[in-house]
Amino acid sequence: MFTVIGERINTTLKKVQAAVADRDADYIKDDVKQQTEAGATYIDVNAGARIGHEEEDMRWLLKVVQEATDLPLCLDSPDPAILEMAYGMVDKTPMINSISLEKERFDAMIPFLKGKECKIIALCMDDSGMPKSFEDIVGRARSIVQELENIGMKREDIFIDPLIQPMSVDSQNGVMVMKAVKAIMTEIEGVHTTGGLSNISYGLPQRKIINRNFLVMMMAHGFDAAIMDPLDRDIMAVLRTSEMLKGEDNFCMNYLKAVRAGDIKA
Amino acid sequence: MFTVIGERINTTLKKVQAAVADRDADYIKDDVKQQTEAGATYIDVNAGARIGHEEEDMRWLLKVVQEATDLPLCLDSPDPAILEMAYGMVDKTPMINSISLEKERFDAMIPFLKGKECKIIALCMDDSGMPKSFEDIVGRARSIVQELENIGMKREDIFIDPLIQPMSVDSQNGVMVMKAVKAIMTEIEGVHTTGGLSNISYGLPQRKIINRNFLVMMMAHGFDAAIMDPLDRDIMAVLRTSEMLKGEDNFCMNYLKAVRAGDIKA
Repeated sequence: MFTVIGERINTTLKKVQAAVADRDADYIKDDVKQQTEAGATYIDVNAGARIGHEEEDMRWLLKVVQEATDLPLCLDSPDPAILEMAYGMVDKTPMINSISLEKERFDAMIPFLKGKECKIIALCMDDSGMPKSFEDIVGRARSIVQELENIGMKREDIFIDPLIQPMSVDSQNGVMVMKAVKAIMTEIEGVHTTGGLSNISYGLPQRKIINRNFLVMMMAHGFDAAIMDPLDRDIMAVLRTSEMLKGEDNFCMNYLKAVRAGDIKA
Repeated sequence: MFTVIGERINTTLKKVQAAVADRDADYIKDDVKQQTEAGATYIDVNAGARIGHEEEDMRWLLKVVQEATDLPLCLDSPDPAILEMAYGMVDKTPMINSISLEKERFDAMIPFLKGKECKIIALCMDDSGMPKSFEDIVGRARSIVQELENIGMKREDIFIDPLIQPMSVDSQNGVMVMKAVKAIMTEIEGVHTTGGLSNISYGLPQRKIINRNFLVMMMAHGFDAAIMDPLDRDIMAVLRTSEMLKGEDNFCMNYLKAVRAGDIKA
């Protein structure tokens, strides 16, 4: 089953930032309920945008969000102190967003991660910047899995983000990341892959059709999680249809249910 | 570049049958011009539906269709005598639709094919019926390629049709055919794969979203030709977007051109 990490509770989004500033719990709860009903697997919570307020905002958000959903949360912060506080507040095993191979960031995260039960998004980023080739992505994925296993993390809890780069910059960027996902999913057995799909279409027109079809192609290569908007009906319809086509939907039951609910329209 | 075999000039379609019966050349020419503009690579011509009239109907259609397009044709008949006549009438190297491993059909086609320059659609069908497994499809593909090479055909002229079977019959039918396409395209180097996409959604609601996403998944596995309706804007938009994502569209030029022409809408 594909893991949908609902991206909407993020203070970089203007309406969310305003709701957080105003302590408008109803707005947040309503959004979280909608994401839950639409099929999110995790609710990402990012409180980083109001400089100097991240701790109090995260604290308030975690309380409000958990009143609205039974889903596990994806704790989205680069600050281990915030994550430590957040980890203590969640009811269900959370996902952490994120760690990378950048030395300073990596070293700061280790004390937090050691001994904790959690899922983690691991970015294929290192101190030299974005990956430059298929081999580069796969090599970084291997390194980060090795490092996380060294501190006792389980492979099935690791979600590798290969870092999707725009087609407008290089028309081989799609192929590069799809080949990498295929290699990671087959060679690093048990690990997951995830990422922000919409980067692929940056700088091009009619972005949504690109994002949707890229999701299908990525799923064909084994991609099994995404940070995305569960309220985007078109992309969710494509996701359910693709799961069915991949043979992950016995008797097409979920597909048929989604059609009956009006969520899938040709 | 993906090969689009335009399926619209087929006398099993009511309007086409009426136009053929009435010798309405304008109707046929208009349709063929539209298919050509929409990006067809071949125009399929099937005159088989008016029993007892196939030869005269095919003769008339070939003349009319070639007045409307410079594209090569796909000669669609099970009858070697019709194909022999049609082959003599075409200006460009045609595709033949089709041959299979069914013994009677195969033996009847060989005298026609021997020494001819043409492309051919080769169905993974034999006297035991439809293929029942991934291995079955790949085995039949190998056999038919071997047989056609034995009579001097070039591998790059062969378009294997793995026979797409409905998801409604078995929810692993999609996976079976995708795995088979992948194996055929990598292990029988140089061959093409094609098929009628819409079989996948037979018996399910909202068929077009299934057909579109199945095309994307098949393309991710190497599928490089389809018998389809080039006037279906949505599926053609998906096709162009997928070619771009597969890195087959330098600087995304074809994608951008299609967006400017209004053919791709998010």
